[in-house]
Amino acid sequence: MHKRAPQDELVFLPLGGSGEIGMNFNAYGFGPENDRQWIIVDCGVLFGREGHTPGVDLIMPDIRFLAEQRQNVLGIVATHAHEDHIGAIAPLWPSLRCPVYATPFTARLITGKLDEAGLASKVKVKEVPVGGSLTLGPFQLDFISITHSILEPNLLAIRTPLGVVAHTGDWKIDPDPLLGEETDTAALEKLGDEGVLALVCDSTNALVPGSSGSEATVRKELAELVATLKGRVAVTGFASNVARLDSVARAAKSAGRRVALVGRSMQKMVAAARETGYLKDFPPVLDETEVADLPAHKVLYLCTGSQGEPRAALARIADDSHPNVELREGDTVIFSSRVIPGNELAIADIQNKLAARGIALLTVDDHHVHVSGHPCRDELSQMYRWIRPKLALPVHGEMRHQVAHAELARQLQVPQAMVPENGQLFRLAPGRPVLIDEVPSGRVHMDGRVLVGEGAGLAKDRRAMAFAGLLVVSLVVDHKGRIAAPPTVLGEGIPEPVEEAVLKAVEATIDGNKRSDIDDLAENVRKAARRAAHDAWGKKPITRVLVNEI
Amino acid sequence: MHKRAPQDELVFLPLGGSGEIGMNFNAYGFGPENDRQWIIVDCGVLFGREGHTPGVDLIMPDIRFLAEQRQNVLGIVATHAHEDHIGAIAPLWPSLRCPVYATPFTARLITGKLDEAGLASKVKVKEVPVGGSLTLGPFQLDFISITHSILEPNLLAIRTPLGVVAHTGDWKIDPDPLLGEETDTAALEKLGDEGVLALVCDSTNALVPGSSGSEATVRKELAELVATLKGRVAVTGFASNVARLDSVARAAKSAGRRVALVGRSMQKMVAAARETGYLKDFPPVLDETEVADLPAHKVLYLCTGSQGEPRAALARIADDSHPNVELREGDTVIFSSRVIPGNELAIADIQNKLAARGIALLTVDDHHVHVSGHPCRDELSQMYRWIRPKLALPVHGEMRHQVAHAELARQLQVPQAMVPENGQLFRLAPGRPVLIDEVPSGRVHMDGRVLVGEGAGLAKDRRAMAFAGLLVVSLVVDHKGRIAAPPTVLGEGIPEPVEEAVLKAVEATIDGNKRSDIDDLAENVRKAARRAAHDAWGKKPITRVLVNEI
Repeated sequence: MHKRAPQDELVFLPLGGSGEIGMNFNAYGFGPENDRQWIIVDCGVLFGREGHTPGVDLIMPDIRFLAEQRQNVLGIVATHAHEDHIGAIAPLWPSLRCPVYATPFTARLITGKLDEAGLASKVKVKEVPVGGSLTLGPFQLDFISITHSILEPNLLAIRTPLGVVAHTGDWKIDPDPLLGEETDTAALEKLGDEGVLALVCDSTNALVPGSSGSEATVRKELAELVATLKGRVAVTGFASNVARLDSVARAAKSAGRRVALVGRSMQKMVAAARETGYLKDFPPVLDETEVADLPAHKVLYLCTGSQGEPRAALARIADDSHPNVELREGDTVIFSSRVIPGNELAIADIQNKLAARGIALLTVDDHHVHVSGHPCRDELSQMYRWIRPKLALPVHGEMRHQVAHAELARQLQVPQAMVPENGQLFRLAPGRPVLIDEVPSGRVHMDGRVLVGEGAGLAKDRRAMAFAGLLVVSLVVDHKGRIAAPPTVLGEGIPEPVEEAVLKAVEATIDGNKRSDIDDLAENVRKAARRAAHDAWGKKPITRVLVNEI
Repeated sequence: MHKRAPQDELVFLPLGGSGEIGMNFNAYGFGPENDRQWIIVDCGVLFGREGHTPGVDLIMPDIRFLAEQRQNVLGIVATHAHEDHIGAIAPLWPSLRCPVYATPFTARLITGKLDEAGLASKVKVKEVPVGGSLTLGPFQLDFISITHSILEPNLLAIRTPLGVVAHTGDWKIDPDPLLGEETDTAALEKLGDEGVLALVCDSTNALVPGSSGSEATVRKELAELVATLKGRVAVTGFASNVARLDSVARAAKSAGRRVALVGRSMQKMVAAARETGYLKDFPPVLDETEVADLPAHKVLYLCTGSQGEPRAALARIADDSHPNVELREGDTVIFSSRVIPGNELAIADIQNKLAARGIALLTVDDHHVHVSGHPCRDELSQMYRWIRPKLALPVHGEMRHQVAHAELARQLQVPQAMVPENGQLFRLAPGRPVLIDEVPSGRVHMDGRVLVGEGAGLAKDRRAMAFAGLLVVSLVVDHKGRIAAPPTVLGEGIPEPVEEAVLKAVEATIDGNKRSDIDDLAENVRKAARRAAHDAWGKKPITRVLVNEI
């Protein structure tokens, strides 16, 4: 065991996932203030939204604080394989260059993503067995099996010479998770007996009373539903919920239907699960072209796109533009999923297209075809009874969830609860836990193939153009700075009559110009153009003046 | 009564609100095919969304089919005063120039909007008394009082020499609407006895079982809640639900709190209701500055912004940037509203900001603080039992709602049900109702102060720029078409290194140019620039080449 020096501190630093959904990134540091060693727990992404960060595929935390001391970063430990916990490993690894640790199924998916990024040969992804342990410098980690909506979710017991922290990752209490381990309640109780400094815990459902329910009840409902259906059946859901995929496949089998996987992530997940020893009884799946010739009542498609993603299988099926899958009147689509906030309209759009073509829709609004993977209030209470931490640190959620979670912890007599925000550095030990610092934090955008700091304002500039367009005035000046050609105006996303009004205003400004300084003239032209646009249109486009010197 | 000629037909034409939420616009025509007279029932807007139609405030139907025969348009009749039923009257009136008819409260709000648009002196808004009638050419209209989430909602009984149509507008069955008329069930039953050709009916809640509930139960809940609260209370909701505003004011009064209206639309609605004889017992409201000095437990703010609108009162209160209203830890915000689809994230953002500051949130998720204004399945069934139409024409809803509504009508033994889409022209009589034509339809955007057809693609162009930015290459050529100055490149929303790569590619293209045609060169430059951006970035910006001739 690592020895403790008098100056040693144990600190906690969330850089993502606090005050926001997704992008989970937490770090624990140990050592004296100026020479801490760090472990990173989870390194996830958030998906960009067109209305907010247009043109940005992925959003990840700004980790410059850790990147600048990367020689002290001992490793990235992944609790489980959801994108919001592992999706940023590949893009951010080049600035960390540390090993990555995960249980086999999670490691398999991380490796796949590193492979796609061309990093597989550089990064060491080290497998930790399910229920296993790991020592990284002063940190001793036990992987305690819990349940969630994916295979191999882990709560990490993080032991240091100054005490133990319990970090839940995402979890729920599923009494019958169907695949993989059950919640290791004995280990959790034992951990509680040991005495835990802090519980860093999932807040997603902290506003939801009761319990999240079990995959087993969804399995039953799916089997009953599919048995009654005529015509083709398509089931869409989260590909990473392997137990759910298994439930759908079993429902198909009982109903005498063959299963075709439609969409790349379905195929990838099933392959990863099989390669790591799961889904041994999964029925042989057919290719989407193979089932096309079967009678309608012999077919079940398991397809991606439950969130309305425009390029996923379901969107193309709804548009009737999928190369191999065609649904018709009398067929049924089951949405075995919830709506992730922000995707409501995209999903409704797909459902409307399906409904217009006479395809029946079964959703969680009318049938028990989905359960959440996150702990509701009764489950949170149970976790606090097991762990009995001195401090509650609610993470993984929006601020209102974290605040409700902290309030619940106080009601449960946890002596202290603090709602962390990204970039806040907490000293957990020695002494009473306290916020001691704020470090640089923020967001980085994967914009095309380039990582761009949010602060650079690229997406913001484009958002401004989306609102009021762009106006470019091109001037030609000679070597003495005199206008040498008529100005030209280009408007993009601007009504034509507005462009005409702008050109007139620009010409008038040039004609009336008495100054010799070309920069002054350009600025006057810019202002006049913008003003003319505003007068004609009521909006002020971004306006640029290009000066071409001959 | 208008006489019927042998060639006369009664037709129905939805131009908005079918297959979509909002933008309700329906027309009824009577006469021979080439000389029909028309009435318009409702003329509403839809609000633009940043991710879909950036920079567009309002979306309204493309009504060119009716505008081209506006001498035959007898009038616009409004069923009630919601924006999605009256919001397009002012912007579209100049292409119709017909009178507008509505009951007093609705007329008052329409007049206000025409006034803001500078049209009040031109447009005749004619008041129809509550429960009154109106004759427009061959159409005889009875305004039958129903209930909804606003004052004076009307079902229109539209009588013609070829039969009667019942047009519901938006409605529900509220046994105790608190303000205004109750549902005139006697008139509805009598209308059914008369024999109704078609019921054109609200589909919004056709997927929701049961009944929508009553404003009276919300009044009770609000009174009970407000009585228990300490600190300042702010209630947000739809300003147009005057009965709800009254309930909030009564809850405040019972709890010894003074009411301040915060936000322009709250003030406008209360004023309109009072001027038309409602809210006689409404307590005197204070100005937001007047209550600032009262003790916290003596204050209730009734404020706009329940949908997360960034410029409304609540967003500014949440940002702590409102000039006169400040909420603090221990205060409470009640969301007496539902989430309109698409607004989830904006509302969550506000709730997170409030929660972060220790302000409690009460919403429809945990308290009975809102009921829908639209008929659920039991209410729809009741309406079909009253009206007993030969044909069901479900409107006002997304396609999946309309399809479910048509299916319900068939289950209720309505002999025929058709799901109309915008632009479809149905002959309702004589003979069995049938789709006979499709007329030009679509959407028009209020873009800044300019009405632009959706087909012009302005918003679409801006959306493309929001994704991948804009690249402008400026060339200078002399009168012989020779390049006369170094090219310049402007990138907006594009990473700087990408701009540099583009400039190099442009220079290389110019250097290697052997063609004399400047248009050819410009096109080659455009392609090279776009390709270079794609190579460096993975995205293809919109690329324009400006040629300046000296």
